[in-house]
Amino acid sequence: MSSSTPSSQSPSSSAPARPPLPREPAALLELARSGDRVALARLLSYIESGGDAAMAVAELAYRGDMPYTLGLTGAPGAGKSTLTDGLITAVRGGWPAVGGSDGSEQASPKAAAEPESVPQVAVLAVDPTSPFSGGAILGDRVRMNQHALDPTVFIRSMATRGHLGGLSLAVPDAVRLLGAAGIGVVIVETVGVGQMEVEIASAADTTAVVVTPGWGDSMQASKAGLLEVADVFVINKADRPGVREARRDLEQMLDLARPGAWRPEIVDTTATAAEGVPELWGAVARHRAHLLSSGQLTVRRADRLALELRRVLLARTEVKIDELVAGEEFSSSVKALVAGELDPYQAAGRLLAD
Amino acid sequence: MSSSTPSSQSPSSSAPARPPLPREPAALLELARSGDRVALARLLSYIESGGDAAMAVAELAYRGDMPYTLGLTGAPGAGKSTLTDGLITAVRGGWPAVGGSDGSEQASPKAAAEPESVPQVAVLAVDPTSPFSGGAILGDRVRMNQHALDPTVFIRSMATRGHLGGLSLAVPDAVRLLGAAGIGVVIVETVGVGQMEVEIASAADTTAVVVTPGWGDSMQASKAGLLEVADVFVINKADRPGVREARRDLEQMLDLARPGAWRPEIVDTTATAAEGVPELWGAVARHRAHLLSSGQLTVRRADRLALELRRVLLARTEVKIDELVAGEEFSSSVKALVAGELDPYQAAGRLLAD
Repeated sequence: MSSSTPSSQSPSSSAPARPPLPREPAALLELARSGDRVALARLLSYIESGGDAAMAVAELAYRGDMPYTLGLTGAPGAGKSTLTDGLITAVRGGWPAVGGSDGSEQASPKAAAEPESVPQVAVLAVDPTSPFSGGAILGDRVRMNQHALDPTVFIRSMATRGHLGGLSLAVPDAVRLLGAAGIGVVIVETVGVGQMEVEIASAADTTAVVVTPGWGDSMQASKAGLLEVADVFVINKADRPGVREARRDLEQMLDLARPGAWRPEIVDTTATAAEGVPELWGAVARHRAHLLSSGQLTVRRADRLALELRRVLLARTEVKIDELVAGEEFSSSVKALVAGELDPYQAAGRLLAD
Repeated sequence: MSSSTPSSQSPSSSAPARPPLPREPAALLELARSGDRVALARLLSYIESGGDAAMAVAELAYRGDMPYTLGLTGAPGAGKSTLTDGLITAVRGGWPAVGGSDGSEQASPKAAAEPESVPQVAVLAVDPTSPFSGGAILGDRVRMNQHALDPTVFIRSMATRGHLGGLSLAVPDAVRLLGAAGIGVVIVETVGVGQMEVEIASAADTTAVVVTPGWGDSMQASKAGLLEVADVFVINKADRPGVREARRDLEQMLDLARPGAWRPEIVDTTATAAEGVPELWGAVARHRAHLLSSGQLTVRRADRLALELRRVLLARTEVKIDELVAGEEFSSSVKALVAGELDPYQAAGRLLAD
């Protein structure tokens, strides 16, 4: 546990004279559930650090309730941070009533098992490409975020994980921890549209893809992947020219895609002026109602857990392979390969037979 | 072996009355070494099909000589196919003499252990994104390629591999097979600049990255990755405006990169007019001379073999994990996860303990 990064970056950590935190995950979770943000930050640091402490936290985290997760992805500069800040306000107003506007959605929020009270909200800002740990980014985010001092909002950056599986395992663990701490809605915001970022943002109950007018040219390569994961499209910076074209572009892509039970809504926003954000939250609520009424929420969450388990299995075996690769027998296998005495399949067979 | 795709696409396969090919890899390789292209095509089909036949071919392939490999990557539409066709002519003219033009390269081709005779050349056109097997693309390539009927040139498309490790294992195996069949130079050309394509093209002795005037805007995201793997830059379509800007852009990138023993040369080509292609081949020869004189060729090839061995190890264990995932115990583990009775780490521990 001594190797965990002690990054209790909550504003309250500068408050005078608080008793030292316990080290036990269970005791920390107890404190976190009662609203202690420093305890929650400590638990997240355990998860980030990996190792035995992370496992102990995961054991508690996966016993708790699963929060509703909203994934937010899109090109850098699309305005996701500002949009997230706006969404926090919307989320704190609770789930809006979902009208049966297109007939296919009869679910009312009352169908949900989750309480309709004002949710506590957390933001995980994930940057897999950043070589820095959360501190610096978080500093910026806290300074610019109007909610930084709001006790019902928890904001955390995750950039690296020094341990097996990396962010694709640490983020779901962190989400579950936030749920176990009593947080109802978690927004997972990723910086870009790389493969890992899309993967992380799409491991959500609702995934919103943020584009801007003129996005088509700059994101040609990512289009198909984004179309596949989007439950909601956001055209942000809708005060700029080209909104109509961007919408037509998206509609055409959706027309060409194979029809499913859910056609992603397209919402225009101008996050800097807080315009369109309540409508975006409404679209998220309608998608949630669809997931609840169709039973898809349960299916999606079970699929996600299966995927997580497969990832842990792969990460565990990769650790074993790396131990093998660091060993003497691997070096002599490579020498035999160089000498043309073995091929890689024979060499692998011998290494794995031990 | 019956599952291997019988794609003997060589022009000579339409010749009348040839005896049926043997099935034994060793006998096929004997024929391939004597110039039988149909036998070589059959061996490559074994490699593509994966499984036991592929292993038997690999065992022979990795005992043979390693050909000199030139990787060629760049955005779709950069003119790589036309450039490759031009390069074939250049390669068939043999390695050019390498002058000590900048003092740092004292190596003459005579330092090489490889013979300076006219090499036989093969092209592997790799398209990881194509869902089709080689046939269709190859048909096009053969029709448009002026060398299609030249018996000293062998052209093959590789698009998929139905087996473990996919193209990132099949391509090095195919390269080694071509070397074992007596081919001296193998050009590995990939269609785009996706992660896997760059990975495949960079697993070469010399990697050439092809750009066009104005490339900077369209390939922003790939720039850093391409810079890292390039041993030679090609500005193709140099008859278009913007060549000077493209060169300045590349020079600036190279200035910013950390200095190494080799600064990539930048060569202008107009492949459609065969302009600049001998100069490109000269740049490849200078890079080769640098690798030989510095001892880097041996180091790079050993590193590549180590990487291949690690990939085979990972692919083997991934097969085992997928067997586990398909099993009943995995399903009941997921149920326990959904019920909150276990976390993924505990579940993985139980599954792997068996």
